[in-house]
Amino acid sequence: MLPSRVRIREVGPRDGFQNEPEVIPTDDKVALIELLAASGLRRIELTSFVRADVIPQLADAAEVLRRVRLPEGVAGTVLIPNQRGLDAALAHRGSFSEVNVFLSASETHNRRNVNRSVTESLRGLRSVLGRARAEELHWEGVISTSFGCPYEGEVPVKRVLGIAAELVEAGAQEIGFGDTTGMANPVAVGAFFAAASEELDDAVELTAHFHNTRGQALANVLAALQAGVASYESSFGELGGCPVPRGATGNVATEDLVSMLSEMGIETGVALDDILEAARAARGLLGRPLGSHVLTAGPVRWTPETA
Amino acid sequence: MLPSRVRIREVGPRDGFQNEPEVIPTDDKVALIELLAASGLRRIELTSFVRADVIPQLADAAEVLRRVRLPEGVAGTVLIPNQRGLDAALAHRGSFSEVNVFLSASETHNRRNVNRSVTESLRGLRSVLGRARAEELHWEGVISTSFGCPYEGEVPVKRVLGIAAELVEAGAQEIGFGDTTGMANPVAVGAFFAAASEELDDAVELTAHFHNTRGQALANVLAALQAGVASYESSFGELGGCPVPRGATGNVATEDLVSMLSEMGIETGVALDDILEAARAARGLLGRPLGSHVLTAGPVRWTPETA
Repeated sequence: MLPSRVRIREVGPRDGFQNEPEVIPTDDKVALIELLAASGLRRIELTSFVRADVIPQLADAAEVLRRVRLPEGVAGTVLIPNQRGLDAALAHRGSFSEVNVFLSASETHNRRNVNRSVTESLRGLRSVLGRARAEELHWEGVISTSFGCPYEGEVPVKRVLGIAAELVEAGAQEIGFGDTTGMANPVAVGAFFAAASEELDDAVELTAHFHNTRGQALANVLAALQAGVASYESSFGELGGCPVPRGATGNVATEDLVSMLSEMGIETGVALDDILEAARAARGLLGRPLGSHVLTAGPVRWTPETA
Repeated sequence: MLPSRVRIREVGPRDGFQNEPEVIPTDDKVALIELLAASGLRRIELTSFVRADVIPQLADAAEVLRRVRLPEGVAGTVLIPNQRGLDAALAHRGSFSEVNVFLSASETHNRRNVNRSVTESLRGLRSVLGRARAEELHWEGVISTSFGCPYEGEVPVKRVLGIAAELVEAGAQEIGFGDTTGMANPVAVGAFFAAASEELDDAVELTAHFHNTRGQALANVLAALQAGVASYESSFGELGGCPVPRGATGNVATEDLVSMLSEMGIETGVALDDILEAARAARGLLGRPLGSHVLTAGPVRWTPETA
């Protein structure tokens, strides 16, 4: 039984913009976010409060939050790396309602990414999360390399679900499982989410975050749907994603995801044409072809004009 | 229950080379085919006997058949458009053992492609096929636009299976169902192959031919596997495919397909590294990036060297 309806969180404005070599002007970011927010998407990751000297692409986080206007019913999400990031974000508390925190399931990936052990990361996140709870923010814990690590290889399901259980205990309402470098396959995904549904509290939302590194993202979405997963993350234009391996594509494109779901008769509430408009605008702005398929091919639905 | 083993027919040397703007030198074609044939692939579509003034890319069909050496156990397939094409191919009878014939399920696509009605095409194919049977060639009937037509929209399953039944009656051992412009989705694919298995003679091999036009090829493969389909067609480097819509990607890449199947524990008998070597050679020869994902990202399997 497939879910009849799924939720999609758009992560392009954070994950995508962060991974571009150039810094996208704040005006353009705000315009793109507002295009996306008009599409029917209910969740959008807007930005992250990180060190401007390390990630200049997101140095305008406060400005983005100050300026962006989201329609009623659209939740803004902010990625929070640490306590200082949360403090900075809370100065704009009215502009978002969800926070994401993240760590990796594999020690090597976590250390390379945030220079801490997984245990140290979990300890740090607990203190951040106490504060987020007090602010009545919805929060998602994202576990990178949930389906494999480019440095360590296989990551045991038990290990990933153990970390998930600790995040749930710390108060996470949602756990995102990231296939950070596209190592998941449909059989593994099916088994993983069957185990996750069994072991984690029913009240926790399970979110799948697939990358299209090896072209399998939508096959993995299908396997996750079949395991009952009804929450996904994606990025318009296939922007962003992990720079390992070099040159590889990243997050599954929102328009490819919405197109497949809609063809399958699964409701997303998202207007494909609006996502395509935003993706076209991003392509124009960045001046390069994007990895998204539906952006190139157009929607499936036939009209005399498209033939 | 997924099949434990699948067969893959590589179609790049015909479908791929035909769709390149330039004519690939025969030497390079032969070298690439022989690389592919050493990978463990059991079926390779080598070329087609078509009018050289219409498709100069395949004008060297006879030369390719004369020169290429396939290892024991590797079947060469030749695409046959008509009686004249079959006669020309039969002059090299020892160089191949399978023929493909094709038509479209939709009238408009068939007329645009071969300037005949579907009924006229079926009548023409019958006479070609009588001859092929007499020569003890394995033959596959390929039905394009089986999952939708860019001109007509939806194509009824009943119509496609009716054409398939006529091909089977004419002696086809194998029917290929082509998603020519990437309009299939996993729900439709599952329902389609369930109906096909029910309505067509059990002895007929059902082959799925998916294009990655909208990024869904591997999701459609997963749905076909779940419906019991154990035969697929793909193209190394993601070469070839339909030029409608313009700029869209074509056939699912053999290396992406082999990678997913192998990660899922499904045997193909194909060495991924060998396919990647052929795809790298084709990329070098064509001097442009190819759509294949695994060609860019590399195989999933982790080694310290790839990390």
